[in-house]
Amino acid sequence: MKTIRLSIIGFGAVGQGVARSILSKQGYINKQGINLCVVGIADSGGCEIDDKGIDLMGAITRKKQTGTVATCAESAFDLISNVEHEIIVEATPTNIKDGEPGLNNMLTALNSGKNVVTSNKGPLALRFSDLKEMAEDNGLFFRYESTVGGAVPIFNLVHEAMAGNTVIGIEGILNGTCNYILTRMAEERLPYELVLKEAQELGIAETDPTYDVEGIDSACKLVIIANSIFQDAVTYRDVDITGITKITPEALELASKNNYVVKLICEAGNGTLTVAPRLVPKRHPLAVGGTLNVASILTDLAGRITISGKGAGSIETASSILSDVLHIARNS
Amino acid sequence: MKTIRLSIIGFGAVGQGVARSILSKQGYINKQGINLCVVGIADSGGCEIDDKGIDLMGAITRKKQTGTVATCAESAFDLISNVEHEIIVEATPTNIKDGEPGLNNMLTALNSGKNVVTSNKGPLALRFSDLKEMAEDNGLFFRYESTVGGAVPIFNLVHEAMAGNTVIGIEGILNGTCNYILTRMAEERLPYELVLKEAQELGIAETDPTYDVEGIDSACKLVIIANSIFQDAVTYRDVDITGITKITPEALELASKNNYVVKLICEAGNGTLTVAPRLVPKRHPLAVGGTLNVASILTDLAGRITISGKGAGSIETASSILSDVLHIARNS
Repeated sequence: MKTIRLSIIGFGAVGQGVARSILSKQGYINKQGINLCVVGIADSGGCEIDDKGIDLMGAITRKKQTGTVATCAESAFDLISNVEHEIIVEATPTNIKDGEPGLNNMLTALNSGKNVVTSNKGPLALRFSDLKEMAEDNGLFFRYESTVGGAVPIFNLVHEAMAGNTVIGIEGILNGTCNYILTRMAEERLPYELVLKEAQELGIAETDPTYDVEGIDSACKLVIIANSIFQDAVTYRDVDITGITKITPEALELASKNNYVVKLICEAGNGTLTVAPRLVPKRHPLAVGGTLNVASILTDLAGRITISGKGAGSIETASSILSDVLHIARNS
Repeated sequence: MKTIRLSIIGFGAVGQGVARSILSKQGYINKQGINLCVVGIADSGGCEIDDKGIDLMGAITRKKQTGTVATCAESAFDLISNVEHEIIVEATPTNIKDGEPGLNNMLTALNSGKNVVTSNKGPLALRFSDLKEMAEDNGLFFRYESTVGGAVPIFNLVHEAMAGNTVIGIEGILNGTCNYILTRMAEERLPYELVLKEAQELGIAETDPTYDVEGIDSACKLVIIANSIFQDAVTYRDVDITGITKITPEALELASKNNYVVKLICEAGNGTLTVAPRLVPKRHPLAVGGTLNVASILTDLAGRITISGKGAGSIETASSILSDVLHIARNS
């Protein structure tokens, strides 16, 4: 049995989802000859560190009861730098201004010989090529399946499952909140403000929804796609962005009468990066409803491959993180 | 640069598609540090063998002009057994009665230390577990992405891209001919016989369409899914099969009025294997039209992931074969 030690940096919904997934899939993982051992967890309150392996259920319970996982005052930096392990799972919240604290966590990990798996879009939308280069220079894995599309494995699909294909273009719906709002507005003929409020009550939209509805989240994801799949050294600032806040129920109704739906579509591939509302024929593979995410990938050999699934949720995001962790465990 | 030598056994549309893909993607493949060298090609007329690498364009031209690739009388068996190489691409036609000649080609390859990549469903629908076991016993790869879904990478998706997930169930449309016939019947309100004739004229259906329209091809694919994903040691005879020949335009019209389409759906996961026409809501992710194939995969962590694309075509099939070849080249 190969033991792979990891730390979880950031212990909110995603970090806890990773802990729960490792617990629930222990038998499955062991069957593959792999023993995943979490030796450290960090949140903003401090750390828990145990080189024999942390009691994950205990950590989740303590977090719930006390608001922090911390049992010692060491920082995430200390954990990443000084505790021996192979992989950090960086799951702190996305910050699109300067990428912190995720960016520093990732740089520290790559500098101290640790592989990085992350769900944090901020550092990748700002410094993708630096991070990739540093990982390559140090012979380390840098994997980020869960940053785009939630449970939908877009990068694994393109880089591994469809190896041999050159991607010509990608279009997708990469923000479940916008998709939910546009779907409900069209189906119920309700104005934007009302549906946004409903989405906030259901926990589908944040109290400050700017990041989603102005297309910023979609743009970050598109930047990661452009860097990862098209090797374009672009950042968030290179995306032409239009959000969904100005769409009216009347526009959606007119579209519907002509057999179209309106979707916030991300497009990459022709040298430009665009996030904007687009008319999509109702029977088009991109016309998925609710909170679903979808990516339609045009390739030279396989033609067009379309994949859809849940774009958010702690267990769904953890699913993509776990696939990255297992990829590293199998190949290192 | 790592040189991987391969043979192509069967040089019809798929085998030639593989040769063309290797030619057109040479730069891409070399960039990954891999040199693919085809040292032998076999068809029913004989073989071409060259341990320095065959002129693939010359082989395709000769096949077109003379009907065979053969430049010597050696058989496929001789090529597989006696010529040093790492991978055979088995692309002879599917035979569901006894799996030959593909079955013998694969057994010979695995017995003589060669990895197997195949597009041939027959041997897998009859002897999957034997082939898998023999490959494992000999430490060899046995890969078959192109047998199901054409260009849609179902197995790579489940086994690699979504590693960590347990698959609960799979539903899919796995035969493009049936999907085309049902789509056209519904859209044009035409009877089965007329649309079948149209499909035959377009080359979408065979002169003898039994294999497709009676659900046999779908059943073979479902058996491969059941073996590969659910580890069920089942064969073609374990599938409950109903074809599409008895579906009337009236039934499709009635379905449409209620916002349904009729599709030939393959289902695996609850211990039974079924191929049968089913009512599918028009907005359901499985409701793809034309000749498209689709698989909807229900998992424990990622939830439902749906993937669609072209289910047939020589380059599309070659795309899946190439991804398998590259997987072996990277990991051996």
